Amino acid sequence: MTFDLERSIDVLRRTPATLRALLDGLDEPLIRGTEGPETFSAFDNVGHLIDGEETDWMARARIILAQGPSIRFAPYDRVRHRTRNAGRTLASLLDEFERLRAANLETLRSWQLTDAQLDLPGEHPSLGRVTLRQLLATWVAHDLGHLAQVSRVIAKQYTEEVGPWVQLLPVLTDHPAPRS
Amino acid sequence: MTFDLERSIDVLRRTPATLRALLDGLDEPLIRGTEGPETFSAFDNVGHLIDGEETDWMARARIILAQGPSIRFAPYDRVRHRTRNAGRTLASLLDEFERLRAANLETLRSWQLTDAQLDLPGEHPSLGRVTLRQLLATWVAHDLGHLAQVSRVIAKQYTEEVGPWVQLLPVLTDHPAPRS
Repeated sequence: MTFDLERSIDVLRRTPATLRALLDGLDEPLIRGTEGPETFSAFDNVGHLIDGEETDWMARARIILAQGPSIRFAPYDRVRHRTRNAGRTLASLLDEFERLRAANLETLRSWQLTDAQLDLPGEHPSLGRVTLRQLLATWVAHDLGHLAQVSRVIAKQYTEEVGPWVQLLPVLTDHPAPRS
Repeated sequence: MTFDLERSIDVLRRTPATLRALLDGLDEPLIRGTEGPETFSAFDNVGHLIDGEETDWMARARIILAQGPSIRFAPYDRVRHRTRNAGRTLASLLDEFERLRAANLETLRSWQLTDAQLDLPGEHPSLGRVTLRQLLATWVAHDLGHLAQVSRVIAKQYTEEVGPWVQLLPVLTDHPAPRS
């Protein structure tokens, strides 16, 4: 597939509503359950996506577009949300994510990016040279990865309850050491 | 977690709206893309979930509740949807899934299942003895597994576009031989 900005924005704009349909008002054991120590619950995933809106995607896009003296990205803190959201409700996180995402996509559209701009480089702390196009494609794939993770972590709360069916449900067994 | 019927119905009722938020109106390459030969696209996943509504979960629940001369389930056809839905639009499948799921959950609620009924056995063609409780828990986990699969298969359409980031996106690499 060739990168298409409008198509990618159309995926990105869906994530808040998709998470809301799946999670808003869901029972606490399903929202807070994890896949094991140091892994993300559904709640943590939403917090992590909020961190991305505030500190990752658009911040890095701006560094690339500026093409200043340094195009190197700051490292990204994957557990910022843990202290930030202590005591918060999932409903408030879903609202916040929706607002932040909408604002970011409005800004992204307002840039009216050209192909030449999408080709501009940045420097990732561990991956090296990347382009703005790759950053935006990664934003989309990252969203979908966390939607898959949210679905999987909720499914895993049913691992005991499904009994012998566990053998036929790869979502319960395909990630013996889940990454969060 | 201990099986809770109301909590499980609350997950099951969300799936049509979650898939609608994620998929309805999405660009065709994302709806029709797969993870390789003989694997399900997002479109195929919705068709497979429809098959489940028509031929799997409630049919098997009825066999268990009847406790007739045979409690053995008929084998389940995982590719029924391929011929059934040729030429259909995704929008029509999403509508159909929503209607079928709502009707099935209304019937399920109307049964007002007791703990004793949830303990009743059926015989799975390959797994052997299972209970109604396990069947209903599996229905939930199966939904979430396919939601994870839909997210993953759409993400994988971005595998080339993310460039070096593929190393940091397990959703793109964790299933080298995906099961559909």
